[in-house]
Amino acid sequence: MMKKYDVIIGLVLVLMLAVSAQAQTLEQTSQQTAELRIAADTVWTLITAMLVFFMNAGFATLESGLCRAKNAVNILAKNLIVFAISSLAFWIVGFGFMFADGNSLIGLHGWFLSGADNSPAKAEVYSGVFSSLNWTGVPLLAKFFFQLVFAGTAATIVSGAVAERIKFISFIVFSYLMVGVIYPVFGHWAWGGGWLSQLGFHDFAGSTVVHSVGGWAALMGAIFLGPRIGKYNRDGTANAIPAHNMGLATLGTFILWVGWFGFNPGSTMAADWAAIAKITVNTNMAACAGAFSATVVAWMVLGKPDLSMILNGTLAGLVAITASCDDVTVMGSVAIGIVAGALVVAGVLFFDRRHVDDPVGALSVHLINGVWGTFAYGLFSTSNGLFYGAGAKQALTQVIGILGCGALVVVISSLSWWLIKATIGLRVTEAEEMDGLDIGEHGIEAYHGLAQTSESAAGG
Amino acid sequence: MMKKYDVIIGLVLVLMLAVSAQAQTLEQTSQQTAELRIAADTVWTLITAMLVFFMNAGFATLESGLCRAKNAVNILAKNLIVFAISSLAFWIVGFGFMFADGNSLIGLHGWFLSGADNSPAKAEVYSGVFSSLNWTGVPLLAKFFFQLVFAGTAATIVSGAVAERIKFISFIVFSYLMVGVIYPVFGHWAWGGGWLSQLGFHDFAGSTVVHSVGGWAALMGAIFLGPRIGKYNRDGTANAIPAHNMGLATLGTFILWVGWFGFNPGSTMAADWAAIAKITVNTNMAACAGAFSATVVAWMVLGKPDLSMILNGTLAGLVAITASCDDVTVMGSVAIGIVAGALVVAGVLFFDRRHVDDPVGALSVHLINGVWGTFAYGLFSTSNGLFYGAGAKQALTQVIGILGCGALVVVISSLSWWLIKATIGLRVTEAEEMDGLDIGEHGIEAYHGLAQTSESAAGG
Amino acid sequence: MMKKYDVIIGLVLVLMLAVSAQAQTLEQTSQQTAELRIAADTVWTLITAMLVFFMNAGFATLESGLCRAKNAVNILAKNLIVFAISSLAFWIVGFGFMFADGNSLIGLHGWFLSGADNSPAKAEVYSGVFSSLNWTGVPLLAKFFFQLVFAGTAATIVSGAVAERIKFISFIVFSYLMVGVIYPVFGHWAWGGGWLSQLGFHDFAGSTVVHSVGGWAALMGAIFLGPRIGKYNRDGTANAIPAHNMGLATLGTFILWVGWFGFNPGSTMAADWAAIAKITVNTNMAACAGAFSATVVAWMVLGKPDLSMILNGTLAGLVAITASCDDVTVMGSVAIGIVAGALVVAGVLFFDRRHVDDPVGALSVHLINGVWGTFAYGLFSTSNGLFYGAGAKQALTQVIGILGCGALVVVISSLSWWLIKATIGLRVTEAEEMDGLDIGEHGIEAYHGLAQTSESAAGG
Repeated sequence: MMKKYDVIIGLVLVLMLAVSAQAQTLEQTSQQTAELRIAADTVWTLITAMLVFFMNAGFATLESGLCRAKNAVNILAKNLIVFAISSLAFWIVGFGFMFADGNSLIGLHGWFLSGADNSPAKAEVYSGVFSSLNWTGVPLLAKFFFQLVFAGTAATIVSGAVAERIKFISFIVFSYLMVGVIYPVFGHWAWGGGWLSQLGFHDFAGSTVVHSVGGWAALMGAIFLGPRIGKYNRDGTANAIPAHNMGLATLGTFILWVGWFGFNPGSTMAADWAAIAKITVNTNMAACAGAFSATVVAWMVLGKPDLSMILNGTLAGLVAITASCDDVTVMGSVAIGIVAGALVVAGVLFFDRRHVDDPVGALSVHLINGVWGTFAYGLFSTSNGLFYGAGAKQALTQVIGILGCGALVVVISSLSWWLIKATIGLRVTEAEEMDGLDIGEHGIEAYHGLAQTSESAAGG
Repeated sequence: MMKKYDVIIGLVLVLMLAVSAQAQTLEQTSQQTAELRIAADTVWTLITAMLVFFMNAGFATLESGLCRAKNAVNILAKNLIVFAISSLAFWIVGFGFMFADGNSLIGLHGWFLSGADNSPAKAEVYSGVFSSLNWTGVPLLAKFFFQLVFAGTAATIVSGAVAERIKFISFIVFSYLMVGVIYPVFGHWAWGGGWLSQLGFHDFAGSTVVHSVGGWAALMGAIFLGPRIGKYNRDGTANAIPAHNMGLATLGTFILWVGWFGFNPGSTMAADWAAIAKITVNTNMAACAGAFSATVVAWMVLGKPDLSMILNGTLAGLVAITASCDDVTVMGSVAIGIVAGALVVAGVLFFDRRHVDDPVGALSVHLINGVWGTFAYGLFSTSNGLFYGAGAKQALTQVIGILGCGALVVVISSLSWWLIKATIGLRVTEAEEMDGLDIGEHGIEAYHGLAQTSESAAGG
Repeated sequence: MMKKYDVIIGLVLVLMLAVSAQAQTLEQTSQQTAELRIAADTVWTLITAMLVFFMNAGFATLESGLCRAKNAVNILAKNLIVFAISSLAFWIVGFGFMFADGNSLIGLHGWFLSGADNSPAKAEVYSGVFSSLNWTGVPLLAKFFFQLVFAGTAATIVSGAVAERIKFISFIVFSYLMVGVIYPVFGHWAWGGGWLSQLGFHDFAGSTVVHSVGGWAALMGAIFLGPRIGKYNRDGTANAIPAHNMGLATLGTFILWVGWFGFNPGSTMAADWAAIAKITVNTNMAACAGAFSATVVAWMVLGKPDLSMILNGTLAGLVAITASCDDVTVMGSVAIGIVAGALVVAGVLFFDRRHVDDPVGALSVHLINGVWGTFAYGLFSTSNGLFYGAGAKQALTQVIGILGCGALVVVISSLSWWLIKATIGLRVTEAEEMDGLDIGEHGIEAYHGLAQTSESAAGG
């Protein structure tokens, strides 16, 4: 009997050793799996952020291509320096205003990325001052970088609408205010734990938070500046001021498109396979639908399929799908894009009739379709949309967000524009505008050695 | 005795609890590992697909750069709208024709991505209508997106060969047929479970499926359209019609090259580390060998290293390595690329002598090297190649695939071109061709404000 | 009693089966986790390498944009062929010289990637001839590809400084020597297990190994070639030779910037989440600080914020942060970038005063800031830096590395330049330089059909 007992106790001891060894291996494997999850999420977040960064190249080439050769250097310089300024401003104060703990109106910590933060810990395990970003398990610097490239986009949107007449220094100052204050404050409302997020406002990747914010600020800039010399006649009719380099502009659109594959799918800030596949397809289909519908509408309305309308139709589809790409069907994306493509053609005609001079169509792309896309979530969302039987509640919440954004940004950006106008001035001299800002502001030409037609060298 | 028994039973119970707890943790860890595998594969598939998408920017800049300034807007517009049309066509019918279950000639399900599908389940666990794609464990929308950007490429290849004379609307209609029908049908034969795949035809990433298909359709288009005005003289000699922007063209080549790092390595649709590292290196080395050999051959044959030949040599190497990059050595890749670079120079001269007017060299790059690359698999494959002692069987199968592709695409695309010619017409008017398609088709110029030499403004 | 015993033995057996089954599952899961780690690291390494590859497009557009239209084709051709040559040279001998086992001066194995190698095994488990790369667990071909795109960069840096006067064939020959010998030898010293790495020299991603090496070789090239015709006057004053396409140049800078997100974060060759997030942010902030400070300094010194200075300031910040981005704070990165932006303006003025003609500012960007960035590690490193209380030891080691690089590269590259000059010659004829290298070397123009001002068609 004792022998049997010994055998059993021996077996049990062997088992205990085996189980304990397994426990260790399991602990290690489980740890490695957790590390790999963070690694996968961080890789996805950083690479998509790099694509969003690349949008700066897209904006620079699109905008300079759509303007006149004599202002190309200025636009290129603006589009580069605006991102440098944005990065610094967002690091110094913007990120704190937007995502740090505070009240329902603004964040009040996190200057220079300071403050407690135990990311990549997430959810209830998170402790630190950036609680509004505790839903993603990537390190703080990855969160910061992703949000930084977004912030840069909002300021860049303004660039196009104020092109060909704003002073370089004035644009730099506005950009700092934009990314340091205006963008983060509304961002806090919608994404930083503020009142709109508490209300249930849905803006997945920023149709409102990025594009409408940029759009409203651009609208006020265009109004404060007034139209370019020669754009509108006494009798109210408008003159076309043709783009000078459609190759650059088209390339810029393709770069923006590929950048949007960072913008929308990356907004998961996690390698969430179901979500990122869906968002990527939705983003692409809306862009295609926008391009297609703008082509058709432009062909019907203007007689010919103007390439700049095709480009803006593509971008319109992209802006419009941004709010809802996580929660609509492919069919819904196509529908949203088709409307966007038509709206952009209508928008360009509308602003021209209202004598708001927007050289690149930024208002029609970013403002009008930022609004449309945000509202469209209330219609097409498969979980909350009117068209899917969920009633009008979400659509109304979306309207509140749209109006809140308009009110806030119109007020603060007007104040900013006014302040700049009253101090350092907003607009270059008439002579400089006629000669082109490249020589006046930067002392160099965009195309030295390539001959220009006299019309372009002058005002036309 | 009872006491000992109690101790043992106690130990056993503790062990059972420990093992059961471990089982749960193990289950979770194993689940998380499986999720991470899907995440890694999906991230890889989507990012490489985005690179392939970016090839649209490459084609647009390469083709418009290689043509004349007066047609640049038209080419850019074509290259953007073709992808929009492709996305819609592939979503509506193309993906279903190509990858859905059906017979050995065509797929018969999956319109608008409909039908059962339990991806990312794979292999025998998969159940759904897209069985031919059950070898990859990514969600259906990731498979769709990757295949969609491929489909867009095939249509874009046509664009270059028919440039500077085709009507915009006619190209749009052909693109829809191309991506909705022609490409998917051959795609089904080779990749969708059709007769060629059953035969053992190997075309890893599409030397034939994408490039030759595009190339044959382009050839028929160039023939149906006839040469550009002024290209060939009565005595049979040809006039050079020089490229107008080599900066754009070179940039386009680099963009295509980086896009190919999506095209080939991404065709694993899985983060299979051994395969993707090998394919990336092979792709790069073939491109370099192609660039090098085209430079040398052009220098010897033409007297100077013409940049457009260097660009096309690079692309030739890339097209040629596409079929076999998963199964050749680095040395094999260099050999394939060297032949490709020589072939592209010979091809350009050949088509010019045959009076097939191909403004950008698309036929020499995509058709000739698509054929060469597909055949080269039969020679250089380390598992089935003639040069590695495996006999000629695979090489013969490759020839069958090459011929099957030629027969199918020549017939259907000729029908399509003929149908379009007979209804809406294929070619712009002579006056429009002389003035340039930019004004005629789109009402805008590519370079407003930059002076053009009279030669270019006219026909030269 | 027997019954109880049977029950216990039964339970124990069941437990043993359970534990053994668990052991198998655990083994599988653990295996899969290890595979996933390799997959994640390989995906990261390859994608960042693709971004570094894309820098070729950035260099091509930046350099050709900053030169004159009449030499644009030549610069574009050089920038494409240099990468093709680099790939072949690095595959044939360079990778072996640099990373293979050998002595403390040079590697002596691994031609054509041959030799034993059991990567992705790493650390002590690694056995093979590339021991100096055994710290990363990716397959050999992934290591090779990442290092290959780095090698290409070093050669490309030279291209800008010797532009507008070097013979095409001579540049090709030098590039082969550069990537086959010069770059790998110093690379072996610092990264391949050579004497500098044994000394504790720190150059994370290559401020010295890539940028200074390229810079010193470029300096000697510029000196051996002499200045462009018309650049300096008899009285010692310099003439500005303006850039011809600032759109291309700006786009090139953005592409280089996004490429640097591969260059620096990818140098981990592992998806190490903490490191890659930090390096990405540091890289970006230094670029922004460089752009900002170059703008301010240029504005003060030159009177206007010259766009080419802004572009070079951005690149200066990127070069400077490259050595230390893994081990400095965000604040440190901004400081390093601010100094870099000022240095680049000073550098351009300095070289012009010394009559070293560097058409694109490559020496100020890559050489001066390569040196600055390498030294800055000795100051700003949080683990070894003077400013963080670690004494001057590291700073002195950095100086040794800087001097060692200068000595080696000046000697070998001078020998190479001299040899080429003495045999096939270095410089195009005066007539060819006046007419432009595009016609002389390649027989085509960059902008056929776009009119050029007579000044540009001639020498100005």
